[in-house]
Amino acid sequence: MTKVTCDMAMSIDGFVAGPNQSLDNPLGEGAGDRLHRWMFEQPDANAAAIEAITAAGAFIMGRNMFGPGRGGWDEEWKGWWGDEPPYHAPVFVLTQHPREPVAMQGGTTFTFVTDGTVRQYLSAGLIDELRLHVVPEVLGAGERLLDGVDDLSLEQLAVSGTDLVAHLSYRVARPG
Amino acid sequence: MTKVTCDMAMSIDGFVAGPNQSLDNPLGEGAGDRLHRWMFEQPDANAAAIEAITAAGAFIMGRNMFGPGRGGWDEEWKGWWGDEPPYHAPVFVLTQHPREPVAMQGGTTFTFVTDGTVRQYLSAGLIDELRLHVVPEVLGAGERLLDGVDDLSLEQLAVSGTDLVAHLSYRVARPG
Repeated sequence: MTKVTCDMAMSIDGFVAGPNQSLDNPLGEGAGDRLHRWMFEQPDANAAAIEAITAAGAFIMGRNMFGPGRGGWDEEWKGWWGDEPPYHAPVFVLTQHPREPVAMQGGTTFTFVTDGTVRQYLSAGLIDELRLHVVPEVLGAGERLLDGVDDLSLEQLAVSGTDLVAHLSYRVARPG
Repeated sequence: MTKVTCDMAMSIDGFVAGPNQSLDNPLGEGAGDRLHRWMFEQPDANAAAIEAITAAGAFIMGRNMFGPGRGGWDEEWKGWWGDEPPYHAPVFVLTQHPREPVAMQGGTTFTFVTDGTVRQYLSAGLIDELRLHVVPEVLGAGERLLDGVDDLSLEQLAVSGTDLVAHLSYRVARPG
């Protein structure tokens, strides 16, 4: 069976995005930079974690990671990443609004899934491996990944890090 | 200058205690056991972290860690740990209710400080080193350490762990 993984950069107070997400600040005000310094400033020291992210056979993301819009789709919007996104694999975008699949260059296809959110997928045990990249930042406000996720059973797989990030990975047990 | 450290066991969703703290469940229902399995089940594998906790020259704790009571003091209550607490050093208990210091056997003294909370101490930069022991548990409800702590500047010092815990340590910068 293919392994489904979920990678999220998270502040030490549990936020995966700041407040006021917009086109200019896709992860909320100031949060995008603060959550991803380890990726951009230390690509070599964090190579194993980055490689694990992009080595997946398929990806799942929330609508807020795909774009800043809300409500019905702007069909011109095809993600943040230009004509050739870095995924090179199927990407499932969780959204309340149906849309036809979009095929990009380089093997990336965006498929829009209307029957769940990341939290629901986690609660239902549909994600096999959760990888949190915890950064030494306190955002103080925004969106928490795990709010409303009850009775999640996690088995810790590995811990590593640099001075800018702690990589924590967990196997998610399917409900018994 | 003496280094002031703060050690907290925390669930992956950011809680340091569960709901409904009481005498039977000092850290909330079920939370105490779930937050501290790494200490009791793997004392050898986590020896360095445990030694660092008890090696401090002084300790600071919230009232909820000292006891289950609220409001005015029950002067009979001298902590959870019996006549000889494991601290062997001054312990500062943060509370809204004044009380005379209590000297215990083995060098532990409890001094009651009425002008702050752990969060306020963190925000004010009065804690030099914050050590979080993040466990693979989702509590879903309870008390969050970092709620209301704004603009905390953290420098990540070290990451280590076993399959039951990730030890994350941070230097806390004093406000500029």
